[in-house]
Amino acid sequence: MAALDKVFTARGSPNIALIKYWGKRDEKLVLPWNSSLSITLADDVVNTTTSIVFSKKLTEDRLFIDGKREDLKNKDIEERLWIIEKMRNDADVDAGFLVASKNNFPASSGMASSASGIATLVTAANAALGSGLSKKELSMIARQGSGSACRSIFGGIVEWHVGSRKDGSDSYAEQMFDEKYWPEIIDIIAITSSEKKKVPSRAGMRQTVETNPLFQSRAASAEKRVEKAIIAYKERDFGALAELIMADSNEMHALMMGTRPSIRYLNSASYEIMEAIEELNREAGENIAAYTFDAGPNAHIITQEEFKDEILWALKEMKGKIMETRVAGQGSGPSLLRGDSLIDLARMAPK
Amino acid sequence: MAALDKVFTARGSPNIALIKYWGKRDEKLVLPWNSSLSITLADDVVNTTTSIVFSKKLTEDRLFIDGKREDLKNKDIEERLWIIEKMRNDADVDAGFLVASKNNFPASSGMASSASGIATLVTAANAALGSGLSKKELSMIARQGSGSACRSIFGGIVEWHVGSRKDGSDSYAEQMFDEKYWPEIIDIIAITSSEKKKVPSRAGMRQTVETNPLFQSRAASAEKRVEKAIIAYKERDFGALAELIMADSNEMHALMMGTRPSIRYLNSASYEIMEAIEELNREAGENIAAYTFDAGPNAHIITQEEFKDEILWALKEMKGKIMETRVAGQGSGPSLLRGDSLIDLARMAPK
Repeated sequence: MAALDKVFTARGSPNIALIKYWGKRDEKLVLPWNSSLSITLADDVVNTTTSIVFSKKLTEDRLFIDGKREDLKNKDIEERLWIIEKMRNDADVDAGFLVASKNNFPASSGMASSASGIATLVTAANAALGSGLSKKELSMIARQGSGSACRSIFGGIVEWHVGSRKDGSDSYAEQMFDEKYWPEIIDIIAITSSEKKKVPSRAGMRQTVETNPLFQSRAASAEKRVEKAIIAYKERDFGALAELIMADSNEMHALMMGTRPSIRYLNSASYEIMEAIEELNREAGENIAAYTFDAGPNAHIITQEEFKDEILWALKEMKGKIMETRVAGQGSGPSLLRGDSLIDLARMAPK
Repeated sequence: MAALDKVFTARGSPNIALIKYWGKRDEKLVLPWNSSLSITLADDVVNTTTSIVFSKKLTEDRLFIDGKREDLKNKDIEERLWIIEKMRNDADVDAGFLVASKNNFPASSGMASSASGIATLVTAANAALGSGLSKKELSMIARQGSGSACRSIFGGIVEWHVGSRKDGSDSYAEQMFDEKYWPEIIDIIAITSSEKKKVPSRAGMRQTVETNPLFQSRAASAEKRVEKAIIAYKERDFGALAELIMADSNEMHALMMGTRPSIRYLNSASYEIMEAIEELNREAGENIAAYTFDAGPNAHIITQEEFKDEILWALKEMKGKIMETRVAGQGSGPSLLRGDSLIDLARMAPK
């Protein structure tokens, strides 16, 4: 049962893919060519808070991101927001919505802001509309808003199953390990740029699928890595896990480089970080850390709590190249906040 | 009939691959996974001069590169020089050899010094031993010394046929167009580093074949590009040729990046050059130039004579990043020099 005129707020966080998603087999349903695996980050460090209200008083739908009103007719927005319209239709609710979303990190720079944005949005909408959907169902809706968002519906280590059905009903996210299974695993985020990325992921993926002949070998390769990474995680074998993470990050960026026109998200600081981590691992005689980069130049360094200071020290030596570092543990996925609202209805609602 | 105690000297030049060779299907015979296509550069700009003498007085074989005596037991040297021992055996000559080779560009930095070194060496040895081998036969011997060297046996545009026989007898180089067919095509070489490369090509290729799952799609992709590039060259369609050149360079470096451990030959100046060329092409509304990188950070910018000044100007704007530029036309392949010897027998021969 929908609760009209009541504001629902969810807080969640981005996930960082250990085995990457790059390339869709169905553009509309957002079905991937391979399974992927990620860590949902703790929301005390990087988070998105999203509020939604449905109201008969709203004669048109409205969206605010980081305080700025967005045009719902904008294609980028429309391709994501239609899932809320669909949830509203499915819930048989006849009311406009007002959404306000706020990130505590730079958006559109490969920090997967859309993942946390969409995951919190569908979580809040589910409550506001009284839809009563399960997390698995929410992950499939989130997926259609922004592929990797489906993984941010859960905490801990999450697999997005590639699925094989044409209607996408077996392409959903699932928690493989909760955030307490191996809590020593952390992500050190090194922000090397806050620039908006030149090529949006959606367009970049399409170019890769269409123009890169090497993409033919990607699905089988990634699928194997997901399997191996789950085994490594289960056995808490960090050396093996780190190797898989770095190999897969490099494979995705290799696929991008081989795309026409070539897509290059990494900058010189990214390459320096890669070399610094490889050097640390060589010196240690084992993998103590793994770098991974989403569709952007910011590094995520997956490591264990005990090596945190050593890695932060190495990053400090690259002064001037790194704008900011953040250390994130594992999160438990989006949660609904009580009595806490981002939406100042008096200000944002129509007069 | 071998001419003992007489010095034979050949001068030749490196080639720059338009469609790249990366990965062997047979390590000993140096058989590639795909055909490749290259331009042999004019030897007035970049060249290697190699002298050889066979003499009974030489109780041991000797090799000097750029004035420095090399250890023939060194694995890198041995893997290349055995072809001269084989030529000597085949010619039934019982004498030691003395070889001196000199490059007018930095060796081992992706400038394919081994290609011009080996091509001139077998050309000189063929004369000294009186072997009477054809260029096709010489290309197959050169191939076994250093794969891409087989292409430097010819001038103009050269294809190295992948072949399918196990003994390598159909994996040879062939001139597709001579240097006069489209003489406006030039190579602007931008040297961004003279450092010796960290990963030798031979080892790098092996790592790629063994560890990079994307390599499975490489052969078919390269083979198609060789065919298309030959058609584009035949039709003097620079736009299409440039697109194939850039795509293939990026594909090879993508394969390297996806290798474990990751191989990165490009430096930040390389990436800046790529961006500058892409920008020039965008501004021109057509491809006026194509960048390509061998196993190193030095750029080869393939363009037409009429755009030379524009490109040199763009490179000048990157002052500090580029150490040197050279403009090379197309060469006609190695030639024997008369009465001109690098070898100072009195100094280099044993007392």
